[in-house]
This record gives sequence, C-alpha cells and structure tokens, in this order.
Amino acid sequence: MNGAESLVRTLVAGGVDTCFANPGTSEMHFVAALDHTEGMRCVLVLFEGIATGAADGYARMADKPAATLLHLGPGLANGLANMHNAGKAFSPMINIVGDHATYHRNFDAPLTSDIAGAAKPFSAWVRTSGNAKSVAADGVAAIAAAGTPPGQVATLILPADTAWSEAEGPALISEPLERKQVSQKCVSDAVRALSSGKPTMLLLGGLALRERGLELAGRIGAKTGAKIMAQTFVGRLDRGAGRVPIERLPYAIDQARATLAGLEHIILVGTRVPVAFFAYPNKPSLLASEGTELLTLARTEDDILDALERLADELGALSVPTQAAQLAPPSLAGGAICDAALSQSLGALIPENAIVVEEALSTGAGFFAATWNSQPHTWLQNMGGSIGLGMPMATGAAIACPTRPVLNLQADGSAMYSIQSLWTQAREGLNITTVLFNNKAYACLRQELANVGAQNVGRKALDMLDLSRPDIDFVGLARAMGVPGAKVTTMEQFNVEVARGLRTSGPYLVEVMI
Amino acid sequence: MNGAESLVRTLVAGGVDTCFANPGTSEMHFVAALDHTEGMRCVLVLFEGIATGAADGYARMADKPAATLLHLGPGLANGLANMHNAGKAFSPMINIVGDHATYHRNFDAPLTSDIAGAAKPFSAWVRTSGNAKSVAADGVAAIAAAGTPPGQVATLILPADTAWSEAEGPALISEPLERKQVSQKCVSDAVRALSSGKPTMLLLGGLALRERGLELAGRIGAKTGAKIMAQTFVGRLDRGAGRVPIERLPYAIDQARATLAGLEHIILVGTRVPVAFFAYPNKPSLLASEGTELLTLARTEDDILDALERLADELGALSVPTQAAQLAPPSLAGGAICDAALSQSLGALIPENAIVVEEALSTGAGFFAATWNSQPHTWLQNMGGSIGLGMPMATGAAIACPTRPVLNLQADGSAMYSIQSLWTQAREGLNITTVLFNNKAYACLRQELANVGAQNVGRKALDMLDLSRPDIDFVGLARAMGVPGAKVTTMEQFNVEVARGLRTSGPYLVEVMI
Repeated sequence: MNGAESLVRTLVAGGVDTCFANPGTSEMHFVAALDHTEGMRCVLVLFEGIATGAADGYARMADKPAATLLHLGPGLANGLANMHNAGKAFSPMINIVGDHATYHRNFDAPLTSDIAGAAKPFSAWVRTSGNAKSVAADGVAAIAAAGTPPGQVATLILPADTAWSEAEGPALISEPLERKQVSQKCVSDAVRALSSGKPTMLLLGGLALRERGLELAGRIGAKTGAKIMAQTFVGRLDRGAGRVPIERLPYAIDQARATLAGLEHIILVGTRVPVAFFAYPNKPSLLASEGTELLTLARTEDDILDALERLADELGALSVPTQAAQLAPPSLAGGAICDAALSQSLGALIPENAIVVEEALSTGAGFFAATWNSQPHTWLQNMGGSIGLGMPMATGAAIACPTRPVLNLQADGSAMYSIQSLWTQAREGLNITTVLFNNKAYACLRQELANVGAQNVGRKALDMLDLSRPDIDFVGLARAMGVPGAKVTTMEQFNVEVARGLRTSGPYLVEVMI
Repeated sequence: MNGAESLVRTLVAGGVDTCFANPGTSEMHFVAALDHTEGMRCVLVLFEGIATGAADGYARMADKPAATLLHLGPGLANGLANMHNAGKAFSPMINIVGDHATYHRNFDAPLTSDIAGAAKPFSAWVRTSGNAKSVAADGVAAIAAAGTPPGQVATLILPADTAWSEAEGPALISEPLERKQVSQKCVSDAVRALSSGKPTMLLLGGLALRERGLELAGRIGAKTGAKIMAQTFVGRLDRGAGRVPIERLPYAIDQARATLAGLEHIILVGTRVPVAFFAYPNKPSLLASEGTELLTLARTEDDILDALERLADELGALSVPTQAAQLAPPSLAGGAICDAALSQSLGALIPENAIVVEEALSTGAGFFAATWNSQPHTWLQNMGGSIGLGMPMATGAAIACPTRPVLNLQADGSAMYSIQSLWTQAREGLNITTVLFNNKAYACLRQELANVGAQNVGRKALDMLDLSRPDIDFVGLARAMGVPGAKVTTMEQFNVEVARGLRTSGPYLVEVMI
C-alpha cells in the first residue's frame, strides 16, 4: 500500500467519505487510490473554488468535513477564497494539496511555489507530509484539526513521492475533541443581566441558530423580556413553521447601531462582538453603543446548547412557551417582478425541509421577512464576504443532503465567480433549483460607492459596476453546462418555473429579469 | 486630492495606463479616482483570475506592466494562480489590493485576512500603504519593483482610509532599472565552448526568443555548428516567415534527455538549467546528461541581446547568413478532424502579425512544427503551468496590441477555469478568435496517470479526468456571454470558421469537436 492509499483509507476510517476534486499530475496516485478504496465518493469540479465552496456547504449540512483534492500551489490558490469563507463559517474542511516530489522541489520547476505559505492565511492548520510512512498519521492529524470546535480549515500538503512510495497502512483515528462547557460564571453573569430588568439582548450565532438553540433562546426571551437576535449573516439557521423566528442584526451601520441603541446588556451566544462589515469615513467600527455591557455566555467553539440549557434552567425558563412561527406562507404574487413580489412568492414556494442557499445581497434584502411562516427550512449564507460561494455551497449542501431540496437564491455578479458549479450539479444530478436574479449590475456596489462618500462619480467609475454590455444569458450558460432552465419576466412565470425546478429531479435554473 | 487619486495619477505618470479590475467596497475610492484622471483605461473582468491573467498577457506584449484592482484578501486569492504564471513568465505587474481601513483591521470583520501573507508566495514585492500621504510614493516603488529586470509581480495593499484620506499629490517617478551587461568572462566562456569543436547547444529563453535574439543565435549557430533550441515553454517567441526557426526542448523527460544527450556544452541564454516539469518515479529531475557542461551566457534578468551581440561579434558571426524561415504555409487540410489536419490548417490560417496564445497541451502538440513557414507571428504560452491562463492572456494581449489579430488555441479543461474572459472580450470588442479544442477530457492527465505509474486504474479514477457527462457546449457558453461562434466537425468547416473569426471584428469562438 502506498502513501496515497494509506491516506484515503485513513480519511474513510475517520468518516471523511466525500472528496471534491480537481486533480493534476501530482495527485494521480491519490486519484488511483480512490479506485482501491471503498467508501469515498469523489466529485469532480471544473475549478478549485467550487471544490472548497462545496466542502463548506457540505460541512454545514453534514456536520463533518469533506476533503478537497487540489493541484499544487496554484490549485490551492484557486480554492483560497472559499476557504476564507469556510473559515469564517467555522466549517470543518480537509484540503489535500499535491506537491512536487520532495527531491524535485529544489529545482524550481514551473509549478513550484510556497504552498504552505499560501495556505496559512486561510487555514487554521497546515502540514506538509515528510514521507510516505507519515502520511496516514498526518491524515489523522488533519481530521483532528478540522474537527477542533467549532470547526476549522485544515490543509495537508502531499508531496508526490510521499503518495507513491510504500507506506505502512492507515492510521488509527483519534477521539474527536468535544466542545467545552462554559464556566458557571458565564451563566451567572447572563442570569444577572437578564434579571436586571434593563433592556437586554441575546445575540446568537453558530449552533445557537439551530432549532434547539432558537427554542431555548426563545424561552429565555419569553421569560425575561430580552430580545433575541441573530448576527448579521448566518452560517446555518433553522427557520420557518415550528421554529422560533429571529431577525438578523442589520448590515448597514446606522441601522445596526439604531437596533442596538439603548441596550444595557448584550449577551453573546456563539457569536462575537458585533462589528461593521466595512469601515466608512466618519462611521464607527463597533456597532454596540458605548454604554452597553457585552457579556459572553458561550463562544463559537463552546458547548452552546448546553450553555443555553443551563441558562434557561437557572432562569426557570425551560418550560416557558415560545412564539414559534405558524405555517402560514404568503400567497403567490402576480404581475410585474419587483423585490416585494419575489419575496412574497418565495415565501409561498419554499418547500418543506428545503435548504435555502442565499447569495443575493441586493435583491434578497426582503426575503427573510417574507419567509417567517413558510415551510420549515434551513438558511445558509456567505460568512466570509467573498462572493462566489452560493453556487458551490448549494452543490455541497445537496451532496450532503440528497433527500432535501436545495433552493439557491443567487445574484448575477457573484454567480459569475463560480458558474462552473452548474456542470457538477448536472453531472451529479443534484436537486438544486437556482433562482438567478439578473439585475445586470454589481448592484450593492452602487450603494457602497455612495456609502464611502465617493463624490462626482462619472461614467468610467459606473462602468466598473455594470454587468450589461453585453447582457449575460444565464439560461444559456446553464444549458451549455447541462442544466435546463427558463427566463422569467413576470411573477406568474416565476411561480411556475420555480415550482417546476423544485418539483423536477436534478438541477434547474430560473433566470429572473430584474 | 485623496490617496486613491494620488495613486492613480502616479501610475499614469509612470506609464501604467491600463487597469484590469474587479473592485469591491474597499476599492470604491480608487474606482472614483479613475473618473478624475485622464489616461487610465479600466477594463472590468468578472473574476480576479482574469485580471491577473490579462495583465500577464498585456505585459508580455506591451513590455510594461498593467495594474490590477482586487478586493481584499479573497479577491487577491482569486488572482494568485495567474500571478504565479506571470511571475514564472517574468511579466511585470502591479496589483492594487484594497484592504479594510487601518483602524478597522483589528476588529476581524468577515472580510479580514492576512493579505500580505497571501500575496507573498506569488509576488516579488509586497507593501501595505501606511497612510494617505505615503500612497503615491508606494506607487512609485511598486512601478520600480515591477520594472526590475526581467519583470516582477508587485503587490500594493491599499487600506481604505489611505485611499480616502487627504494626500499631497502624485509622486515623482524614479528612473527604471536597466538590464545589466554580462561580464566578459560569460562571453569568453561561451566563445571557448563554441570554438571547442564539441557538440554544443545554445538554449534560449526570455528576450533571446524575440526576433533579434533569434537572428543573433542563428548566426552563431550557423558560424559554429552549435544547435540552437528554446526552453520547453516560451513566454513570447517571434516565429514564422522571416524569423530564425527554433524548436523547443521536449516536455517529456525521456525525449528531453535524448535531445540533450551527447552534448559537451549547453550555453544558457536567458534561461535556467533545464529541469523536468514534474517528477516521476525512477526518473531524474535534471534533463542534461551528467557529463554536459552548463554555462550561463546571460541570466533572464541580464542584457541578453547585448550578450548575444558581443558573443556573435567575438565569434565573427555578426554577418553570417541565417536560415530564416520562408513564407510557405501549408495548404488547408480537409476531411475528418485530427491533430495533424488541425496543425496543417492552422499553419495556413495564421494571419500576418498574429499573436497566437496557446494553451492546448494535448491537441496542440503538433502545432509548432506545422507553423514554421506561416506568416510572421508571436507565440505565447503558459509559463507557470497553472491552467486557465489562455483566455485571460489572449484578452490582455489584445488590449495591448489592438491592431494585431489574436488567435487563442485553447483546450477545453483549461478554458473552464476562466471562461468568464469571453464576457470581457465581448465588452471590449477585442479581436480574438478562440479555437476551442473540445476533447471532453483532461486528456493530458490520462497520459500523466500512466506516466506516474498509477496501476490498475478503474472507473472512479478515470471519471476524474473526464469532461463529458454532461458535454460542455462551448459555443453556447460564448453566445451567453456575447461572443458569437460556431461548432465544427469537419476540417472544411474549421477552415471556414477560423477564417471568419479572424476576418470579423470583435471576438469569435470556434469549437472544434475532437
């Protein structure tokens, strides 16, 4: 058994059974090893950013890491932006990056680069295998690193000779690290704040946004009068009928500060001190008011659900009724397409148990509010702000959850970062309905240009935010990669086509002309 | 005048008049500054890898750097692979990467990352501007770094507040660094080798592959009997009628070693010791035989043409006639499509003064030999081995040379890395004819799987090299991004459509079904 095979077997033994791959010459032994090993599903992608973005979506829904297979420094580089997003989402991930044979690296061949140096800014753990006999143990360490709460990006660099030389076999998997219980002081401080009678907010992130966390937070809120709110972007949020509804902290600084104004305490539960996404001239970076006390009940990596349980228990809130959302979806909207009508129809159309992958900052601003009372579903967003995650994330989520329909609400500008995802969706027959909002612009940047105070903006600048000239035909792009679809210009067409996409097996794309 | 404007004005004053851009919020002041400054052409791309690949193609043809405009760490990350290629091609390039405002970086907002750390593995020079008043001087330093022979990748990180705060105006451009003359010893050693009567080769790269370098090398070869040969991949090679023809060192290790076997001396002219592209089990990394003496006449960064002139002069070769290629293109091939027929027709079709951008490793193996006697043209290849450069490089070359037809000979697998290039080609109306070879596979990897000695390869492994299921419709992709095209299944159609592409204004794509 060679090093590559010892690694694949180790990964499978450690529960890593899915690999998003775009291999090259230096990974050919790893590819060959896939044939000799039962239990590893290998999904080919046409660009490495799809691999890492899919691994993020997979990890969020499977609660375990996928592997990626990447080709030397540049292959890794192509995956870094979505590794950034995954890191910010605390998604576990194991990147296997082939390198030149150890003895070949000194010759500065064309594909030589500092792979570990490139990996470090976007990985919590990086290791280069030294020889074939250590590869399996390195795989164990990578699994452990990825699984370290709350989840991390681990990158293992595999020189070609460590893959092809003789190894000793797979290594024993180590026990996964558990999330730590928070101290009693954290709970007591939160009890004190919530019992103070002063305006208090529970600000939630991470596992607190799963169904059980929301339920506990909802009980605490109902008992104490505290407001509960989610951080601005959510990695995975359970919502819709039966779940405790929760608003997100607004993105815009002024709105966010207004939302947090007047609070005596903010209790952080699986999230961090809220800060502005970007800095703007003459606006603060911190969103809470100066007089507000910020308390941490549980950090992202802590045992968040246990902390909420203990807090609810101490407050006597464990059996307080919550205001869970009723199943009362809006009716389908008709007529001309506008943001409000799209929101309304989406509220009606989201199917039971759907995974909604949303990367639609401008058009999607109102989607959240219109879907409180939809069928129960899970909502995934981009946590790192590097656009181009939506379509890969939908791909990975669909592979993690083959029985759940995936609805990808996707902006046009970000779609073009990783449009090649559609090919993998077609190849794997994934049940993904992409709703592509074609507003022919980087629309959010038009707003941002004003927000940063850029003055007297002319044609040359505006051209940099414009996606017309030529118009992009997304249905055409999808068809060319094996994904059927339809363009819609009225809400009636929208309703029919989105329903068709959700109903039919395999991927479908609905291009919405805004 | 703010920092952004001082930078744009400094760049323009330094001759940097083209910017390939994919901006975000943190670059909005730079974008606004474009409106206030005459002389900077700004080209929007849909993905950052197109920006850096286009800057590589631009630099190779313009012999000066373009700027790129990238959005924080992930935007830079998306451009790294083609920065890798540009670095290996010694293409000058200036990346402007927006960052959070200096005071905002400590808050770990979602888009925060170690930008300088990410840039370093793929940049020869990295600097982060400290304040608005230093930005212009930082721009001067970036221009100087990019222009340091033989050309380098320079990355300037521009925190948002250094862009929006008040600056003092543009800075004075420093004198560019000149290439250094090689020592007399380098010339004398080469004279000794060439006069030894023993088998000797001049191995050429860099500026030695321009028309004048080839002429001088050709005269030296004619005078001394030395063989002249180009390195395996060429950044920019002048060839066709009127130029001294030159073969490239074969890619495959066994062939390359056979080519170099029996040589007493190899004289390196603008290139380095030849090494294998990849390592393979039981094959050496070095391509020259152990007994061969390797001499350096001129390093890539030296004054290569001066060195060749002096060498030719000392050898009395300056007026020796060369064997320049005659204009005798092959006739158009007919019938079924095969590699030989494609090579032959391309030899007939390459128009005068064309720029041929070739990223077609498998199908293109025979293109070189069939085009010796074509119209004079310039040939560009991928120097770093990170696939996905062809279409961006064609884009940048066309912007650098608007009067020259660009012929992009493009493999399917690599095309899908940067297919978004077509949109920019349409938007800018570039005269690029893309000839897309659709063999539905990462065909070179099938060979590599065998080369690395991977045994008993089954379906699961072969699937990772297969681009059918679904077939990709490249004409459909092009049309969806505003580029007309045609699919061809016979050589007669090929001849008609490639000629049509070359004749018509704007981009065109010919999909060749292999």
